[in-house]
Amino acid sequence: MSEAIPGYTYGTAQVAQSPVSLEEWELLKQTVLWTAEDEQYLRMAGEVLGDQVDAILDLWYGFVASHAHLVYYFTGSDGQPIADYLSRVRQRFGQWILDTCRRPYDQDWLNYQMEIALRHYRTKKNQTDGVQSVPMIPLRYMIAFIYPITATIREFLARKGHSAAEVDRMHQAWFKSIVLQVTLWSYPYTREGDF
Amino acid sequence: MSEAIPGYTYGTAQVAQSPVSLEEWELLKQTVLWTAEDEQYLRMAGEVLGDQVDAILDLWYGFVASHAHLVYYFTGSDGQPIADYLSRVRQRFGQWILDTCRRPYDQDWLNYQMEIALRHYRTKKNQTDGVQSVPMIPLRYMIAFIYPITATIREFLARKGHSAAEVDRMHQAWFKSIVLQVTLWSYPYTREGDF
Ligand code: HEM
Ligand code: HEM
Repeated sequence: MSEAIPGYTYGTAQVAQSPVSLEEWELLKQTVLWTAEDEQYLRMAGEVLGDQVDAILDLWYGFVASHAHLVYYFTGSDGQPIADYLSRVRQRFGQWILDTCRRPYDQDWLNYQMEIALRHYRTKKNQTDGVQSVPMIPLRYMIAFIYPITATIREFLARKGHSAAEVDRMHQAWFKSIVLQVTLWSYPYTREGDF
Repeated sequence: MSEAIPGYTYGTAQVAQSPVSLEEWELLKQTVLWTAEDEQYLRMAGEVLGDQVDAILDLWYGFVASHAHLVYYFTGSDGQPIADYLSRVRQRFGQWILDTCRRPYDQDWLNYQMEIALRHYRTKKNQTDGVQSVPMIPLRYMIAFIYPITATIREFLARKGHSAAEVDRMHQAWFKSIVLQVTLWSYPYTREGDF
């Protein structure tokens, strides 16, 4: 599947290097109370969400599309959303849902987090899809998105007949993962030495 | 009560000015799906948490104290935690729980968010309590703390006999507020123009 997604370079030599050491990463995981159980429940979430990726993306893209201040980051110089940009990013976004649940959070994963960070930032935004859009997404919206991306996933986690306790554990693991990822994505925005 | 808390300057002329305009603030609230209902449920949370502040702080301080990489930010040049610093900050932290639930999120509130931001950052850390501790708290831990500060409050919200639906709404409102506040607190860490 991966090869079919334009611009999805996970695990290749083109991906950025994470600036975060494995020791720093370990402490960051402790800070969100990360445990082996979270890994297990993310695997379960991966099974639950696997065939719902399009429905999730419909919801998220609907949210972005209905807010001018958000869809703005997909617009060209004429102020109109670039359809091709939206649809190419959508494919990688779908893959990211699966990666969040299924990939081991190892060096390759850390590196791809840095790649995603740079693709939202001035360094690499627009390059992957060869578009001329707004130069970067402000950090405030990156952090704020923790809420919608976490809150809205819950209903999808609950759709496959798991117990309330299982849904809750999958949801907590997802929440931790989103917080960790947005934390990693804040790196390029941060003043030297302050990350 | 407020006058009794050393260093708590809410609403006074000593507080920093928020760099965020009311228009930007409006858009940020929309990004976390903020509604008038959230305000109502935070008021309810304020009633529920009012007499549990010490128990909550015991839990949070216990979490910090049990992690060397976190308690580090309260240590002096001898590597030992500064007891007076911990206890003075604890009082303001308790007041903050109440402010999060009870204050209107107006200009005074936005200004005090900037003040809290600067007190975690190089600009003002240690000054309020006249201590010589570590110069700043890295942004990665600020963002990561969204998880523990949100997840651990739930049990306290559930302790006063409210329905599961009410507890959930109080908790969602709290979660949104924490995300908004940490977003505002990221300002001084961010490169010029990237917030
Ligand atoms: C929790 C926060 C967010 C998550 C989980 C997220 C997720 C993603 C993912 C997975 C990608 C594709 C990465 C890849 O190339 O493989 C992406 C790209 C993109 N996202 Fe986000 N995103 C977040 C915040 C935002 C915000 C706030 C905006 C603003 C509307 C935004 C707009 C975009 C854009 C424009 C791209 C394409 C970047 C490029 O030119 O390569 N994202 N996002
Ligand atoms: C969601 C994240 C956080 C919240 C809600 C929070 C809350 C607070 C509050 C309310 C205060 C007192 C503000 C005032 O002076 O009125 C404070 C100060 C402080 N916090 Fe945090 N904090 C967070 C993250 C952190 C982290 C990650 C650390 C690192 C261990 C930390 C360490 C401190 C320290 C050392 C002070 C005293 C700063 C000074 O010198 O004035 N905080 N925090």
